[in-house]
Amino acid sequence: MKKGLLIVLSGPSGVGKGTVCKALMKKVQNVTYSVSATTRQPRLGEVDGVNYFFKTHEEFRSMMENDQLLEHAEYVGNYYGTPRAFVEETLAAGKDIILEIEVQGALKVKEKFPEGIFIFLLPPSLEELKDRIRGRGTENEVVIDHRMNVAVEEIALMEHYDYAVVNDEIDLACKRIESVIIAEHCKIEK
Amino acid sequence: MKKGLLIVLSGPSGVGKGTVCKALMKKVQNVTYSVSATTRQPRLGEVDGVNYFFKTHEEFRSMMENDQLLEHAEYVGNYYGTPRAFVEETLAAGKDIILEIEVQGALKVKEKFPEGIFIFLLPPSLEELKDRIRGRGTENEVVIDHRMNVAVEEIALMEHYDYAVVNDEIDLACKRIESVIIAEHCKIEK
Repeated sequence: MKKGLLIVLSGPSGVGKGTVCKALMKKVQNVTYSVSATTRQPRLGEVDGVNYFFKTHEEFRSMMENDQLLEHAEYVGNYYGTPRAFVEETLAAGKDIILEIEVQGALKVKEKFPEGIFIFLLPPSLEELKDRIRGRGTENEVVIDHRMNVAVEEIALMEHYDYAVVNDEIDLACKRIESVIIAEHCKIEK
Repeated sequence: MKKGLLIVLSGPSGVGKGTVCKALMKKVQNVTYSVSATTRQPRLGEVDGVNYFFKTHEEFRSMMENDQLLEHAEYVGNYYGTPRAFVEETLAAGKDIILEIEVQGALKVKEKFPEGIFIFLLPPSLEELKDRIRGRGTENEVVIDHRMNVAVEEIALMEHYDYAVVNDEIDLACKRIESVIIAEHCKIEK
C-alpha cells in the first residue's frame, strides 16, 4: 500500500496555525489530525485528546524517556511533542496526516521524515503578528516582546521548508494548503 | 519583477486537453492561454486566434524558418507550434501562461524552460481513451489504432513531467491543475 503524506504545518506562535488547521480539517477529507501532547494549560474550550493530550511534566518526561515522541520542544516554559505511534500507523495505513507544530519541532521531524511536506504559515506582516499575539489577551508585554523576537528568528528558518503560505484570510490560507496537498498527490515520483 | 510561471498541459491525443484547458481558463484568473499555431483544419466552432492560429503549411514553414516558434511538432500529418514572442512577453510581465500542447512539443519546451511546470493529463484508462477518440467521430478505425499506439508511447514519457492529473471528471481535473498552480506559487525557492 502506498504510504500517506506527512504534512507539517508550522510557523511562529500567534500566526494562527491552530485556527487555520481547524478550518482545514473541516474542509478536507482523508487528512488525519495529529494530536500533540503538551504540558501547557488548556485554553478555554480546548478538549483533552482533541486539541492536545494535556500532560503533567512528569507524564511528558516519561514519554520522552520511552521514545514515544517523534519530536518535542520547549516553548515559553512548556513542552510540546508529537506522539510517534499514531503518526506512523496513519501513514502506514495510506492516510495523510497533518502535524500542527512549532518551528523547532518541525525541523526535528524533518530530520526523521525528509520526505514530509513542510508548510510555513506566515503572517501578512510582523505588525499584524504582534497585534494577533496581543489580541489573544493571554500574555503580558514582556512575553509578547519575547514571542516577537522568537518569531523573527523562526521566520529566518523558513528556507528549510517546502512551501510558504500567508495567513491573510483563513479561507485563502486553507485553500492554499489544500492545494499543496492535492498537488503533492499529483506529483510524479522520479 | 518576478517572472510568471510557464505551465505546460500535455497528454495523449483524445485525453481531453482542450476541454480541460477551456474549463480551467474560465475558473482561474491571472493565467494567460498560449494560442498555438497549427496547419490542421478548424473543427466545428473553433475560432482563428482564439483556439488556434490556423496556418497554411507555407505560413507555418515560414514561422519555423524565422525562429518564431518555441516548439513545433508534426502530428498525424499536421504541424502544431507555439509562437515564441507571446510566451516570453507574458512571463516577463510577471503573468502565468499555460501551453496546451502535444507530448513531443512539451518535451521540446522543457529543454528551453526546465523551470516550467509540466503536467501530464491521463485518461482514467486506455479503454476510456479509445472511447473518447472514437466518440469524437472525426477519425476512422485505422487512425484510431494509430493514435492509440502513439498514446501508449506518449504515456511512457510521463516520467519527464512534474505532475500527473487524471481526467476522470473535468471539474476534478481542473481543481487538480488549479491546485498545482497555487501550490507552485507557494513553493519556497531554495
